Order: sequence, then C-alpha cells, then structure tokens
Amino acid sequence: MTEVKELTAGVLKNDRRLIAKTMTLIENNTPEARRAISILYQHTGRAHIIGITGPPGSGKSTLIEKLVKELRTRGKSVGVVAVDPTSPFTGGAFLGDRVRMQKHSTDDGVFIRSMATRNNPGALARATKDVVKVLDASGKDVVIIETVGAGQSEVDIIKIAQTILVVLAPGLGDDIQAIKAGIMEIGDIFVVNKADRENVNRTMSDIEAMLNMNPEGKWRPPVVKTTAIAGEGTSELLDKINEHKNYLKSGVLKMRHRQIAQTELVEAIREKATESIVNYLKRRGKLDEIIDEIIVRKTDPYSAAEKLLAERLKEV
Amino acid sequence: MTEVKELTAGVLKNDRRLIAKTMTLIENNTPEARRAISILYQHTGRAHIIGITGPPGSGKSTLIEKLVKELRTRGKSVGVVAVDPTSPFTGGAFLGDRVRMQKHSTDDGVFIRSMATRNNPGALARATKDVVKVLDASGKDVVIIETVGAGQSEVDIIKIAQTILVVLAPGLGDDIQAIKAGIMEIGDIFVVNKADRENVNRTMSDIEAMLNMNPEGKWRPPVVKTTAIAGEGTSELLDKINEHKNYLKSGVLKMRHRQIAQTELVEAIREKATESIVNYLKRRGKLDEIIDEIIVRKTDPYSAAEKLLAERLKEV
Repeated sequence: MTEVKELTAGVLKNDRRLIAKTMTLIENNTPEARRAISILYQHTGRAHIIGITGPPGSGKSTLIEKLVKELRTRGKSVGVVAVDPTSPFTGGAFLGDRVRMQKHSTDDGVFIRSMATRNNPGALARATKDVVKVLDASGKDVVIIETVGAGQSEVDIIKIAQTILVVLAPGLGDDIQAIKAGIMEIGDIFVVNKADRENVNRTMSDIEAMLNMNPEGKWRPPVVKTTAIAGEGTSELLDKINEHKNYLKSGVLKMRHRQIAQTELVEAIREKATESIVNYLKRRGKLDEIIDEIIVRKTDPYSAAEKLLAERLKEV
Repeated sequence: MTEVKELTAGVLKNDRRLIAKTMTLIENNTPEARRAISILYQHTGRAHIIGITGPPGSGKSTLIEKLVKELRTRGKSVGVVAVDPTSPFTGGAFLGDRVRMQKHSTDDGVFIRSMATRNNPGALARATKDVVKVLDASGKDVVIIETVGAGQSEVDIIKIAQTILVVLAPGLGDDIQAIKAGIMEIGDIFVVNKADRENVNRTMSDIEAMLNMNPEGKWRPPVVKTTAIAGEGTSELLDKINEHKNYLKSGVLKMRHRQIAQTELVEAIREKATESIVNYLKRRGKLDEIIDEIIVRKTDPYSAAEKLLAERLKEV
C-alpha cells in the first residue's frame, strides 16, 4: 500500500515521474492502479476536458500542438492523452507528431501521453479514462483527449469530454465522413483545418448543411476555420472552446456530470461482476466445462449465464 | 411461450416471415427473442460464416451480390447480415445497394437483413450475432456478415466469422487504411476490388508488403483481384473462400469454435450480471443515491462497484 500512497501523493504534487508510473500501471491494469484511481477520484472534476476527434490526415496533432501553446500563453496547464491506432502504416507519421510535441517535455505545465491500442476495446477505453483522471487530479486546467474517432469504442471514450471538437479537412472525401457518422452527431465545435487548401468553403457548407438537419438545441455548434500548421485560427478556436465551457456552466454541466458518473458506475459494475464470476468459474475449473457444453450445443451461452447468475447472485 | 415455439419452428422450417419477425424481436431485445435464441442455439454451428469488411467505397455490397449469385449457382443457400452506419451521408448509396439485392427476395435460398446502428455498440454487436444464429439455424449453408470495419466493435462482430475477407479498392488512400489498421490483421483473404482502376498493382503490392511483415502462419492470406461490378474474379474468390474453409477443417476450426463459445459465454455473463445488478439498484432507488455520492466525490465508481458486488455476490 505504501507504493500506492507514494504514487497518488506524487500525482497530486504534479510529479512527472510518478504521473508516468501511475499511467503505466493503469495501462497494465494492476490492482495498484485501481487503488490509486479510487484515491485520486476525489481530486478529479476540476479540469476542463476537451475531446478532439477527426480522421487521420485532418491535422489533429498539429492543431493540438498549437492549442497547447496557446493555452500555455494564457497561463493554463494542459494534459494530452492520444489514443493511437498502433499500426505499421501510421506509426511513422504519428511518431513524427509525438516528437514535435516533445519540446514541451521540460515544461511541468504540460503532460502528454500516447495510449497503446489493445485487442480489448473495453480495456483501452477504461485505461484512457483513468489516465484522464490522473491528469485531472495532477491539477491540469485542461485535459485534451485525441482520437481518430473510428468506431463506437472511440465515441465512448470521447463522451467523457465536456467539449468535443470534430476536426475535418477539405478534400478528405465523403468516404471518411461516412465512417465518422457517429462522431458528427456529438460535436460541440467543428473545425475545418488545413483551411489553406482548395474546397475549404465546400467543406464548411457541408458541415453547416448537416447541422441544419439536426434538431435545434440551445448550443448551435460553431464551425471554425484553422490552418494549424501556420498557427492561424487557433486563438479564435480557443475562444470558442471557452464560450462552450461558459455555456456548460449554465446547468448543462451538472447533467453531463451525472451522465458520466452513471456511465462510470455501470461500467465498473460490468467489469467487476464479469471478472469475479469468470474467476470463480476458472478457480473451480468450471469455465472449460461450460464451454464444452456450449460447443456440443447441450446448452447455450445465455441459458448458461442465467443459470450461473441465479447461483452466484444473492437475489436476482 | 407459444409464440416463441411458433417463431423457432418457423425459423427451423426456413419460413421467411417468421425469420424476419424473430430478427425484429432480436433488434428490440425482447425476452421472447432471448428465449428463441436459447432454443435455436442447438441448431447452429452448421453454416460457414464469412465476414466481409472494408471501407465505404470499396464495393463490398456489389461484391456480396455477386458472391450470392455464384453461391446460388453452386446450389448453396445464403444469408446476408449488413451492419450499416445509419447516416444521412451514406443512406442513399446503401439503400441503392439494398434495392439491387431485392431481386433475391423471392428466392427462399437467400435472406438479407440490414441491421440498424444503435447508440449502444454492445447491443448492436449482440443483435448482429443473434441474427447470424437465426440464419444459421434456418439452414443457410453460408452466412455473410458485412461491416465497414470502422472501429473495435465491428472487429468484435466480424470475429464470429470463420473466414474473414478484407475488401479494399485502389485509390481509396492511406487515410482509410490507417483507420482500418485493426481489420488488416484479422483478414484471411484480401480482396482488391475495382481492379479495373489505376494503381491496382500498387494496392496489391502494399497488401503483400504488409503480409510479409506479419509472422508466418500456416495460412498465408491470398490477395485476390476482383471487378465485382463486371462479375470478374468472384468465382475465383469463392474458390479461395472454400480453400480457407477446408484449411479450417484441419483442426483450426475447433479452436475457433472454442474461442467463439468462450467469448459468447463471457459476454452473456457480462450482460446479465450488469443488468440484474443495475435493475436491483433501480428497484430500490439506490442507483441515484450512489451516483450522487460519486458526483460529490464521497466515493468513486470502482469502490462503489466493489462494495455492491461484495453485497450482491454469494462469495466473491
């Protein structure tokens, strides 16, 4: 337990080394990590969490780099959590981005972490959320989560953000927009990056057209043009982010916090219940037995699970 | 219970109307659907399940249309389950594809179902797997699952397939390949469709280069060229699919069946355990109480879940 205490004390003091160590334990899903998060949880809820999503090629990493710079200029500390697809195709480009970000590595007001993709999407989502909590507890004013926004598990991750930016670029094609349909609906701010490219106006009007199809809410997502590589538009973008933050304070934030707390509780129940029941079966050598029965169709997974729960739960 | 009996009897007799009705109940996640699947489960495990994935624009639907035609020529019955992103962007194109497939709608050897995307990725994955089971139980020789392969939840769906085809097209760009990194690793057969386009050889060699980077297994995924719209290469593709099916019979299939059964059991435990614990909390009005405690940081989700499970499980 000493180690957990040392870790959490280090995180609360914004100690770089112990923050990194805690994150590694989280990625390895150790019992220490879980205890650390339980302790740190009460120190969370202060950071403004910004989700930034968009297809590869939209220039998210450069945009984030410039936002970090702008936030530092305004005296804010920042954490960045990047959810990367580890892929031989993207490795090169992504590494390049990461290296550029390293210039912040001697600044205690900035902490950047890349998450390794796992086979288990649930494990990645959970680890990402916990890494965000560590940055929040370490006192960062702003925590940015970066994802490529492909698929539902990434949508789930980004939903813990209070302000969600969807970054697109002209000329990425309709195909990518189709893939990202799930993301388009949750954007609080749309960014058209690489605004020095042709067709920027067409992309802007495509987004506006889409927004016009949505039911009118209290917050109409603004569409902001940036050319991140030249640093253009990022200060204006940060103003829009702050506008959204102020909008949230008008009651909406409470609702989001409630939703997030409920999601987190149900996920924790899901994970712990599954783990303890499966471990119980494994300890008794019953898991393979039931699997054999399923394979020969003597039972089916749902009936087997129902029977098990009737046995395991005190009152279903 | 009479209705469930009627439904399952209808599915086993390959009754179109009752198959469709069962699928609708599955999509609505009714208790009847669960009972029906429990009964039908013992009649599953006979169909060859083929997963077909690839980005929008790769021509998957046309390819599937031609494969269905070829399978019918060879005397095989086929079920198709398409997992669509419901999106204003893709709606049009996808609907067009579906309409073309309708010419099979009077052929009892073919059944096609589009799944609506849900907010809950777990619910979609589960419904899709159950719809596949209905088609399997209805006696289809082959069941094809089509997904755009974006993200982890779709990778999870496609993993119940015995033979996985990854469909690409020349000129779709590196961006899409990056998004699909997770899919590339699970392909048993790679298809370069739209082979009448420029750059087909470059796409073929890109895939071969990627395959060369993978550790050598017993099955080296073949890369097959097709021009589905002209019906070119689809018969050869079906031969490759059958080669893979024969390869699986050499012991590998048993292992896959074991993995699938374990995954299905653990998922069923996860779902039922979560449901029964959350319902228990709701009935007692305790869910909101715990959420309030989490919001004010009196507890955290993991500790709350642990405490709950200690209370609810007979022996953790």
